[in-house]
Amino acid sequence: MILSALLTSVGINLGLCLLFFTLYSILRKQPGNVRVYAPRLVAEGEAQRTGHFNFESLLPTAGWVRRAWQPSEDQLLSTLGLDAVVFMRIFVFSLRVFAFAVVVGVFILIPVNYLGNQLSEDFSDLPNKSLDSFSISNVDVGSNRLWIHFCAAYVFTGVVCYLLYSEYFYISSKRVAYFYSSKPQAHQFTILVRSIPISPERNCSETVESFFTEYHPSTYLSHTVVRRTNKLQGLISDAESTYKKLANLKLTTQSGQRFRRDGFLGIFGRKIDVLDHYEKRLEDLEDNLRMEQTSLVKEVPAAFVSFKSRLGAAIALHIPQGINPTQWIAERAPEPNDVHWPFFSTSFLKRWIFNILVVVACVSLTILFLIPVVIVQGLTHLDQLEIWFPFLKGILKLAVVSQVITGYLPSLILQLFLSLVPPIMIMLSSVQGYISFSQIEKSACTKVLWFTVWNIFFANVLSGSALYQVNVFLEPKKIPSILAEAVPSQASFFIAYVVTSGWTSLSSELFRLIPLICSFFKRLFAGESSDEFDVPSTPYHSGIPKILFFGLLGVTYFFLAPLILPFLLVYYCMGYIIYRNQLLNVYSSKYETGGKFWPIVHNSMIFSLVLMHVIAIGMFGLKKLPLASSLTIPLPILTLLFNEYCRQRFLPIFKVYPVECLVKKDREDQNDPAMGEFYEKLTAAYRDPALEPVQFSRNIGDGHNSPLLHSAEV
Amino acid sequence: MILSALLTSVGINLGLCLLFFTLYSILRKQPGNVRVYAPRLVAEGEAQRTGHFNFESLLPTAGWVRRAWQPSEDQLLSTLGLDAVVFMRIFVFSLRVFAFAVVVGVFILIPVNYLGNQLSEDFSDLPNKSLDSFSISNVDVGSNRLWIHFCAAYVFTGVVCYLLYSEYFYISSKRVAYFYSSKPQAHQFTILVRSIPISPERNCSETVESFFTEYHPSTYLSHTVVRRTNKLQGLISDAESTYKKLANLKLTTQSGQRFRRDGFLGIFGRKIDVLDHYEKRLEDLEDNLRMEQTSLVKEVPAAFVSFKSRLGAAIALHIPQGINPTQWIAERAPEPNDVHWPFFSTSFLKRWIFNILVVVACVSLTILFLIPVVIVQGLTHLDQLEIWFPFLKGILKLAVVSQVITGYLPSLILQLFLSLVPPIMIMLSSVQGYISFSQIEKSACTKVLWFTVWNIFFANVLSGSALYQVNVFLEPKKIPSILAEAVPSQASFFIAYVVTSGWTSLSSELFRLIPLICSFFKRLFAGESSDEFDVPSTPYHSGIPKILFFGLLGVTYFFLAPLILPFLLVYYCMGYIIYRNQLLNVYSSKYETGGKFWPIVHNSMIFSLVLMHVIAIGMFGLKKLPLASSLTIPLPILTLLFNEYCRQRFLPIFKVYPVECLVKKDREDQNDPAMGEFYEKLTAAYRDPALEPVQFSRNIGDGHNSPLLHSAEV
Repeated sequence: MILSALLTSVGINLGLCLLFFTLYSILRKQPGNVRVYAPRLVAEGEAQRTGHFNFESLLPTAGWVRRAWQPSEDQLLSTLGLDAVVFMRIFVFSLRVFAFAVVVGVFILIPVNYLGNQLSEDFSDLPNKSLDSFSISNVDVGSNRLWIHFCAAYVFTGVVCYLLYSEYFYISSKRVAYFYSSKPQAHQFTILVRSIPISPERNCSETVESFFTEYHPSTYLSHTVVRRTNKLQGLISDAESTYKKLANLKLTTQSGQRFRRDGFLGIFGRKIDVLDHYEKRLEDLEDNLRMEQTSLVKEVPAAFVSFKSRLGAAIALHIPQGINPTQWIAERAPEPNDVHWPFFSTSFLKRWIFNILVVVACVSLTILFLIPVVIVQGLTHLDQLEIWFPFLKGILKLAVVSQVITGYLPSLILQLFLSLVPPIMIMLSSVQGYISFSQIEKSACTKVLWFTVWNIFFANVLSGSALYQVNVFLEPKKIPSILAEAVPSQASFFIAYVVTSGWTSLSSELFRLIPLICSFFKRLFAGESSDEFDVPSTPYHSGIPKILFFGLLGVTYFFLAPLILPFLLVYYCMGYIIYRNQLLNVYSSKYETGGKFWPIVHNSMIFSLVLMHVIAIGMFGLKKLPLASSLTIPLPILTLLFNEYCRQRFLPIFKVYPVECLVKKDREDQNDPAMGEFYEKLTAAYRDPALEPVQFSRNIGDGHNSPLLHSAEV
Repeated sequence: MILSALLTSVGINLGLCLLFFTLYSILRKQPGNVRVYAPRLVAEGEAQRTGHFNFESLLPTAGWVRRAWQPSEDQLLSTLGLDAVVFMRIFVFSLRVFAFAVVVGVFILIPVNYLGNQLSEDFSDLPNKSLDSFSISNVDVGSNRLWIHFCAAYVFTGVVCYLLYSEYFYISSKRVAYFYSSKPQAHQFTILVRSIPISPERNCSETVESFFTEYHPSTYLSHTVVRRTNKLQGLISDAESTYKKLANLKLTTQSGQRFRRDGFLGIFGRKIDVLDHYEKRLEDLEDNLRMEQTSLVKEVPAAFVSFKSRLGAAIALHIPQGINPTQWIAERAPEPNDVHWPFFSTSFLKRWIFNILVVVACVSLTILFLIPVVIVQGLTHLDQLEIWFPFLKGILKLAVVSQVITGYLPSLILQLFLSLVPPIMIMLSSVQGYISFSQIEKSACTKVLWFTVWNIFFANVLSGSALYQVNVFLEPKKIPSILAEAVPSQASFFIAYVVTSGWTSLSSELFRLIPLICSFFKRLFAGESSDEFDVPSTPYHSGIPKILFFGLLGVTYFFLAPLILPFLLVYYCMGYIIYRNQLLNVYSSKYETGGKFWPIVHNSMIFSLVLMHVIAIGMFGLKKLPLASSLTIPLPILTLLFNEYCRQRFLPIFKVYPVECLVKKDREDQNDPAMGEFYEKLTAAYRDPALEPVQFSRNIGDGHNSPLLHSAEV
């Protein structure tokens, strides 16, 4: 890619971003869009849906930027929770890293690269210069200037490690402080026990009761056996949807429209009263439901066991319970509203096999995904495209078209394909047997991250058949030199990727095009009637990997093609404001992990650093500077040792709360008169909502909506 | 190697074994040797050192075999402890595995191999037949007979996995039963806490006291702060040796010999009274010692913390204590007499760095050791030896010499070099920061095992420079074919190795040549005076790797060269009797790990199986049977999955006793009136013996020996 193509791409995307921002600042002020742009505030009752039309509201303003900027981190913490703060810390951390990188890259490395003669172009024609003249490829082979790159790699690694350490330290202390300031919560006192050994004499509930009164007499409080309620849940959702239809019908239809023919498409057959029809059906469903609930629902050999103190729960969690380690497996209980197990399985062996199957599925998905990536990869090589599709020759001759195709189209297509991945990974993670949304999302986050790294980075860099790539990793000795040859040659693709995919994804994140269209059509057809709407939950599993992947690109290309760095800095600056805005207005988190997403960020950063080092080793080898190449070898080793130290120093805090914290919190509670009430609630906290009594038909006359809400809130 | 050379070697070694056995059965009946052949019984007072000379005692008998055979496993368990039983189970397990292997190998595989024509020898001259005609090398390329080997590999793997599972099951249940039947022991109630944060206001003891009374108020009992007593220990051992000399002098010397010149070699200078001289010196040392003891010995920020119940100790052990995971690091306390820390370090970072250094040291030792191995390797190739040492040509022409050299010498030299390894590994493990003999020995056992596998197996198989071998493992794809080519060609070396090294090591184990010589000279020069002698501790760290390595050879060569199997079976039969005899008569274990050595055996067996599979994959490839080669690929994967399942099913039992066991034992103790006394003992159990008051000088007059004994027994 030449400089002018890059500038075209930057121009297009900057224009698009500005357009989106302007549209956003106008649209968000329209009262009708408040559910699209501030659903969180609506749900909390802070934003009013109705408002007068105002001419001022048609003017684009930047007030939202100010409002997103203003809240301090403590305010964010109190309103949004620790997870959101940790999410924002990714941006803060990345901004620090890349601010330093830009200074080094732009003021030291780019001039050094540009003054090289390896690619032997003349200095005159700047716009038509290949981007490669700003990259390390332009430095002469064997040149001593490469020692500048060598030093830059060392200094940069040191700075990143220092920042990683201080950030880990900061977030782990935040996590402890968050725990100290938390109210007593059901999940702090509860564990989930699986693989309960069933004897023929006693049922599951009795077995649990006797086991825990026997071995935890002083701390055991109560338990709730898990039941298979798939069928019940199906019935309930049927009833709910019928109820909704009915309520809608009652509100909208007049007496004249009440009748409809019961045949095909409501056109043939005899006339029936629609309202009556639905009421009848709802009653049938409810009868069915009650019958199912009163009949014994099948018990699953798993139970939520609650304890009187946090320490009690921790003891039962950390020390193996039974002599057979595959029985009485304890696991931290999720928050009651975080419980989610479409694929819940109690058998140890079954879960273990499912785990293996999911790994296999992930790997095959990753490999199969290479097919679209390879096709996209072809688009950056126009000549190849012309061979494949000869009829395009005429169009591709046009400069604008070819620039758009090389600069914009590939990453857009990749983007589209990639948007399918997070839901698939969520599905795989839930098959794996995690018991809560938070765990599923965390696991999916890791999966999506490695998927992205493999399929976007490695697949593009090591273009070629999938088999060839696997072969590369079977010959570890050659990896550095292969990477060093391949990675710099894809620099222009990734610069374009940051500008297009990165910037566009941010502005589309802000603009929320699809929800906007949905809301528009909903209002057009369904009217403004329904009060119900979902506040979207924070998409950690798709957001974090994207942000981290750009970090990986930045770190990897830091000394290879520093031209990427300013664009990344812009990305992170915009991302900081936009995600703050979205977290404050749009998303609400359904759960709180207490910052457990941070270790993923840390690991990804370490991986990026080591990848950079490996490429550096190969690069200095290619540039015939064997001394620099060997002197770089300690760098990845030191980085991995640093990582190992961090794992020992910080990771345990993200897994377990220490005795010190638990006992302090338990002592606080002892003096709290509200604990009696809390224990009562705790006993019922993990009851399955599907087993609560439901009453739809009676509510129809009243203005009440969603009769299940009270039971789901327990 | 040809068949007759092998038979020569078998003959020599069988003769040697019989000779050793005969000598042993005579020598062990001599009253003077009872300390060499039954020190354990002497120490327990079961064997009398004195006895009348008896003509019958000069006749070789096999009574010791009967006596070693007789005791049942339960008797072994009650007299020797679980570790010894687990040690014997290695033989039982190996016997089962190789009994099956011999049946398959000798009756199916050897005939199939022998009927092959690949090596195209004639059938007539059996003694001069190469051993290779009994191995898979003799099977024709592409022959369908190889499917027999393929089936054998599958069936054998299945049988071994079944045996592994049932053995793991058996030993883990034994371990739990052993725990149930154990008396209250100090180490069950105690943990060692390191990295105690020191504040300037309080000393270490106060910090520990306040921390545990704060966070474990109901279970905390007492603590003992660790002190740096290196200097004291030096003084004590000085005093002890002086005391011993003095006591010896008093007993042996008459008044005439009391004087000696104090100059060079006792020849020049003025005459002094030797007794007076030593007495004076001893008193000085004692004064010094007492002064050191009364002055504050430097505290180390680590402490043994004892609890009132086993569950209390487990809670403090398993749940992280402090907010900083690198502080208050808890570790299971070893048995009081198992405590050993020449390199004890409390700092988290220091221990961590030492760990890394030890890993580096192990790797370099392993690589440097290749030098002697490569030289030994040369001995099996006589022609090469003739080139190196031309003057040997004449001798090497003699048939006997060449047979001895190829059949016997190489493994003897290797043996000698190898005997140096266990002490080195013990040293490295103790540098690593383990706090007890048992942990050091367990860690050394693993180290010695991998060292043996690498340096005996791989170094011999992949003969060549060290660099070449490392290169092999950098190209994983080629490993199967390289191994498949190299491993069978070394079959004759390893058959000879089993016969020489294996059988000889067993008979020398029985004969205890070096202790016998030592004891002889001791009696000759020192007389029978000293009552002190050390009962040797069971050498798990050198014995187990040796036994396991033969298992690895057997499994690897099972389908390649089944001729090795009968010799291995003989090895295990002899080993079973000899080690039983030695455990009953010679060794006494200084500690009891409760069977923690078994996981090493299991892992080694799994590694052997996978190695066999990898070789099989390469072998079928070389023999142009690609279908068999690909169909073998699932085998290692299934084996590794089986191993993973075993890790989850059994390994936790070897690390932690579950709540169920702990609570049951604690309940039993509650009703025990002796617990009060036990708690008192517990408080003092981990006091440093170097800080106990010592009194040598007063004892000299009395008949008491070793005044330190009582303090060391606490």
